[in-house]
Amino acid sequence: MKITGIELRRIAMPLRAPFRTSFGVETTRDVLLVRVVTPEAEGWGECVAMSEPRYCSEYVDGAADVLRRFLIPALPAGRADAHAVKRAFAPFKGHKMAKAALETAVLDAQLRTAGESFGGYLGAARDRVPCGVSVGIMDSIPELLDTVGGFLDEGYVRIKLKIEPGWDVAPVRAVRERFGDDLLLQVDANAAYTLADARQLAKLDAFDLLLIEQPLADDDMVQHAALAKLLKTPVCLDESIESAEDAAAAITLGAASIINIKPGRVGGYLEAKAIHDVCVAHGVPVWCGGMLETGLGRAANVALAALPGFTLPGDTSGSRRYFATDVTAPFELADGHLAVPAGPGLGVEPVADILDDVTTSTEWIEL
Amino acid sequence: MKITGIELRRIAMPLRAPFRTSFGVETTRDVLLVRVVTPEAEGWGECVAMSEPRYCSEYVDGAADVLRRFLIPALPAGRADAHAVKRAFAPFKGHKMAKAALETAVLDAQLRTAGESFGGYLGAARDRVPCGVSVGIMDSIPELLDTVGGFLDEGYVRIKLKIEPGWDVAPVRAVRERFGDDLLLQVDANAAYTLADARQLAKLDAFDLLLIEQPLADDDMVQHAALAKLLKTPVCLDESIESAEDAAAAITLGAASIINIKPGRVGGYLEAKAIHDVCVAHGVPVWCGGMLETGLGRAANVALAALPGFTLPGDTSGSRRYFATDVTAPFELADGHLAVPAGPGLGVEPVADILDDVTTSTEWIEL
Amino acid sequence: MKITGIELRRIAMPLRAPFRTSFGVETTRDVLLVRVVTPEAEGWGECVAMSEPRYCSEYVDGAADVLRRFLIPALPAGRADAHAVKRAFAPFKGHKMAKAALETAVLDAQLRTAGESFGGYLGAARDRVPCGVSVGIMDSIPELLDTVGGFLDEGYVRIKLKIEPGWDVAPVRAVRERFGDDLLLQVDANAAYTLADARQLAKLDAFDLLLIEQPLADDDMVQHAALAKLLKTPVCLDESIESAEDAAAAITLGAASIINIKPGRVGGYLEAKAIHDVCVAHGVPVWCGGMLETGLGRAANVALAALPGFTLPGDTSGSRRYFATDVTAPFELADGHLAVPAGPGLGVEPVADILDDVTTSTEWIEL
Amino acid sequence: MKITGIELRRIAMPLRAPFRTSFGVETTRDVLLVRVVTPEAEGWGECVAMSEPRYCSEYVDGAADVLRRFLIPALPAGRADAHAVKRAFAPFKGHKMAKAALETAVLDAQLRTAGESFGGYLGAARDRVPCGVSVGIMDSIPELLDTVGGFLDEGYVRIKLKIEPGWDVAPVRAVRERFGDDLLLQVDANAAYTLADARQLAKLDAFDLLLIEQPLADDDMVQHAALAKLLKTPVCLDESIESAEDAAAAITLGAASIINIKPGRVGGYLEAKAIHDVCVAHGVPVWCGGMLETGLGRAANVALAALPGFTLPGDTSGSRRYFATDVTAPFELADGHLAVPAGPGLGVEPVADILDDVTTSTEWIEL
Repeated sequence: MKITGIELRRIAMPLRAPFRTSFGVETTRDVLLVRVVTPEAEGWGECVAMSEPRYCSEYVDGAADVLRRFLIPALPAGRADAHAVKRAFAPFKGHKMAKAALETAVLDAQLRTAGESFGGYLGAARDRVPCGVSVGIMDSIPELLDTVGGFLDEGYVRIKLKIEPGWDVAPVRAVRERFGDDLLLQVDANAAYTLADARQLAKLDAFDLLLIEQPLADDDMVQHAALAKLLKTPVCLDESIESAEDAAAAITLGAASIINIKPGRVGGYLEAKAIHDVCVAHGVPVWCGGMLETGLGRAANVALAALPGFTLPGDTSGSRRYFATDVTAPFELADGHLAVPAGPGLGVEPVADILDDVTTSTEWIEL
Repeated sequence: MKITGIELRRIAMPLRAPFRTSFGVETTRDVLLVRVVTPEAEGWGECVAMSEPRYCSEYVDGAADVLRRFLIPALPAGRADAHAVKRAFAPFKGHKMAKAALETAVLDAQLRTAGESFGGYLGAARDRVPCGVSVGIMDSIPELLDTVGGFLDEGYVRIKLKIEPGWDVAPVRAVRERFGDDLLLQVDANAAYTLADARQLAKLDAFDLLLIEQPLADDDMVQHAALAKLLKTPVCLDESIESAEDAAAAITLGAASIINIKPGRVGGYLEAKAIHDVCVAHGVPVWCGGMLETGLGRAANVALAALPGFTLPGDTSGSRRYFATDVTAPFELADGHLAVPAGPGLGVEPVADILDDVTTSTEWIEL
Repeated sequence: MKITGIELRRIAMPLRAPFRTSFGVETTRDVLLVRVVTPEAEGWGECVAMSEPRYCSEYVDGAADVLRRFLIPALPAGRADAHAVKRAFAPFKGHKMAKAALETAVLDAQLRTAGESFGGYLGAARDRVPCGVSVGIMDSIPELLDTVGGFLDEGYVRIKLKIEPGWDVAPVRAVRERFGDDLLLQVDANAAYTLADARQLAKLDAFDLLLIEQPLADDDMVQHAALAKLLKTPVCLDESIESAEDAAAAITLGAASIINIKPGRVGGYLEAKAIHDVCVAHGVPVWCGGMLETGLGRAANVALAALPGFTLPGDTSGSRRYFATDVTAPFELADGHLAVPAGPGLGVEPVADILDDVTTSTEWIEL
Repeated sequence: MKITGIELRRIAMPLRAPFRTSFGVETTRDVLLVRVVTPEAEGWGECVAMSEPRYCSEYVDGAADVLRRFLIPALPAGRADAHAVKRAFAPFKGHKMAKAALETAVLDAQLRTAGESFGGYLGAARDRVPCGVSVGIMDSIPELLDTVGGFLDEGYVRIKLKIEPGWDVAPVRAVRERFGDDLLLQVDANAAYTLADARQLAKLDAFDLLLIEQPLADDDMVQHAALAKLLKTPVCLDESIESAEDAAAAITLGAASIINIKPGRVGGYLEAKAIHDVCVAHGVPVWCGGMLETGLGRAANVALAALPGFTLPGDTSGSRRYFATDVTAPFELADGHLAVPAGPGLGVEPVADILDDVTTSTEWIEL
């Protein structure tokens, strides 16, 4: 498979609800799409970087720069496949989201050429996956309860509440009381706490949570291991895990008993699969996180979430969780599940008109 | 890919040197080959079971019986791929070698259909692999030195000596003294010792061995962990590791700092890849063992041994190590290495005349 | 004691209730009996393998093949006793159920010759043993409650419920609520869960269970040790324990605080006694499991269950738990107990007519 | 102190010897300088990022983009000091080198305004620091010996050899043999090895090295801890330590017994001082690494290296190690030491003409 050219396409996806950032309120999700062109097929990859380096060090414009400047020039000259691409990127440190976008696009082209689906390639064991939803920090408990209720009405089978100091025990208690003990409920701290907050976090033990996600800073597994000993709620790591080595280290240290796998965060689907395999070998459950992906990124995540080790519902929400109109045929919940695409590659295609409408720039790099 | 039928073929490969067993001296290697037929391609798998259950509980006739009675009937009815086959076999306990033979044959057919090589599919990072050789227990030290010298003349880059109580320190010392400190040297105990022999095994610490393989019984990782603390020579596990879960447990316990991956022993190449990934994540080196495979089995092993975590030379010897004539074009050492087959699937074909000559029975199972 | 010949006899025991397998509903228990003939006495051994390798890797036809092909030829040539037989089998890996059947038959002949009972030989401390019963997965809770009620009416002193994902907390709660807090109640998962299910299994902590048996895969003690820390219910191992070394390892790792001893699973009564001794030394309670044995196998189990370390009631049910007619005089509960046979050897004899009725084949091997 | 504007200046410093990169041979060091202007004083900060993200994820153009896009807009609006700047940057993940450059420039302006030196502010305990030198990988041993000899002639008191697989034991042995046992000698692997290379690295134990720096990948402390147990040579971490939390974790895990502090790598001199304090508290020696700094960056490093915990000579070489002409008055070795600048702030000034000569672009950002 010879890559003849690559398109970097920026799109601005209007969000159904505004998204608060440090620069103010954003009403669109700025996304970088990578399209790999070969004589046999095209492949798509979606870069999950946000517009600012707040979740991790990557951001959309930076990822585009790294792709243009280092990763695309480093692509194997001859026959490219995802494994070869991954190896070619190894000398460059970090920039996992940029790498993942390009590697995924290559893998998509490769699988479309072979007529194989992402799910088939990765070893998906199911044809649909149960879906959870992530609920942001709200201005009030009543607003939160309304929102959660709405998601449950849509069929979501698991609720994740974002928490931060000042918004933790009270919202969790309110949701548990309103929606009962059978609700699958978990919380995500996005590294907003310190080990000094262990006492406060231990108060969450009373609410039978599935897990607490990334309570402490992303670069400190030793402190997470210390915290895990102080909590009954299982500790799940997200930002801390950027590779299979990180997963192995976290398990060895007891820093995590559950891992959230986001392929973009770990450099692509090959590494995501390796992390899955490491976790399964250790009996550590995994689930698939989300980064406000469009249908292109969502398709691959849903395929990944169908692997046997994904024993917890993921943040693989339907398209309308974030977008009124998706760039692909929308992913829609049926009985709280999303169907795993079965067609070649991602199994979804961008709808040309819709894609053009949201495109803010394109850049063609001839190889 | 619809499987239309399966052939179980027994062959008797004349050995270049007689092989001692409890029943006397064997002059042939009894091998079970599995041929999967689909409309698009055929695939081959070689069962590595020996004729008696001395290495593990499996043996050739038993494997054939399990294939016929349980595994072939359990094949997915519709489109079969290696992942689906692996899942379908999961309810049956043990019988990893039988499972591996059939799963490999399916994978070979699948990859030949897709035009992809085993190496490409698994993520091989090299186009040739360095080769070690395993040297059996000899009647005398001089005979051993002659044998080792002969293998070094052939270009082998690493020597493995089989050891047992009464044949350990002396032969290792003799080989080290004759061939010098730069020789890559390791030993394989095939579970012949007990923890009570730790003092004797510690005497091997003086000889700068790469590793000691499977010193204790295969089912006791706790004792291996205890032994590892008493030795400087790194402990490598072989028979003890039948799954990625076993590898994870061994690493967690400190029972092994190196792992020998034999795809037949672990149920196939998918599990072998998973074990590789677990070991890489933990920084544990792996290498590829051998089970007197013909060229068909050897081809897949050489592809596996080209993965990046295989940082130690394997027992991937040339065909003539065991056989005057191989059923495929012979694997031949060049500068101590074997080339990784690049063609679709295994990348090798049985030579019809040769295969027929050694065939002792065939059985066709229409699906 | 010179063995002059061995009979392999297959019998089909009609089951009182149909038994569900992957091949459909079985109405008979397919059993392999081994009869050892010496000039002085005959001895019987019952192979506990099932017809498919789903509980462990052994199955009836496979066990027969291994006996015929490897174990019988390996019998000591001269005077045979159980210890010598056990040593002679050691070079063959696995096949514990086949080994146990033959070793037991030899031991029976040896004890009958000496006029000593199994109980006397093993060190039984009681003349009767309390009996529990194992209750399969039912179609409904009411059906389960009826079944349990019936067993309690028969006098069983302990109830074991088989559980699997989807049939765990609800049936346990129902039984506990219906039959009260004094009922001795335990559950058996037969390896149907993963460490990812720890949260669900922890819900069983509320029901004051004696133990949870084999929750995870049989080959992972490290994960069982991790699970044991997350549960209040004591973890008992069954399939994981195939030798005294396994028992020692499990205890060392904290993978089990109770062990189910099945002589067939561990290779015979000598090894079963050794496991008992290791557990007593560590203060770990044991109990005797069952494998749908006929009266011949049951007799030896009841003798074993009379050893002092068997401080929990076993699955040593009465004959009518499974069979309308047993091949021996039936074992019948008296006040919830079975009497330990006191006669030489097993202390029971097959009833010729009944045995002939259920026999499907016999094979005589002259030695 | 109100910042009125910031200049981003790119300079191309001609190197005395060409520097090999993946893009070919570079003859200049591309440097980003940050100049902070306040009514009272100007301050300089040097960004140590390289032109490609091979040492870490940062690179010069990327750092400039992050400064322009996120860090400069995030500067505290009112009175700025280094502490406030550090806090303002905390919400942005990563980008430590970009942060360090701007924080250092602010600190320089702040200290010049206060008339206080970097050394005085940080707590320097000496007025000169002993200097080591880092020696790259050479084409041959004789060339290496010549180079080391030359540096020793210049007065360097400690030699650091860069190593990589294939260039490790031989060069170390040669240097040790030529220059004797009293030479302070250490090696730097820049993450070029894996845990699988432990055996090879252990061969360095024979040469009485001060330390081995960053043998394994930067993101795996657990594997460094495992390696440290296998080596006698103390393990020092460089790339792995990006914060005081990282240092604490490494010490807790036994992953490092010595730490190389590079202020650019850890986000600035405030964090560098904190790491020093943590290490002193734990009795862990530190030393100051280098990143081919000009005199501006070097000045601050020399001040830091004068702190009491810096008990090992740093890579604080003289200007002429890399540059024929420095942008400041050159740092020159006297008796193997560099003098700690005593004037306000950095204590050095760029020479206008020289700076202009090497400037490739400037960008003024009015605040």
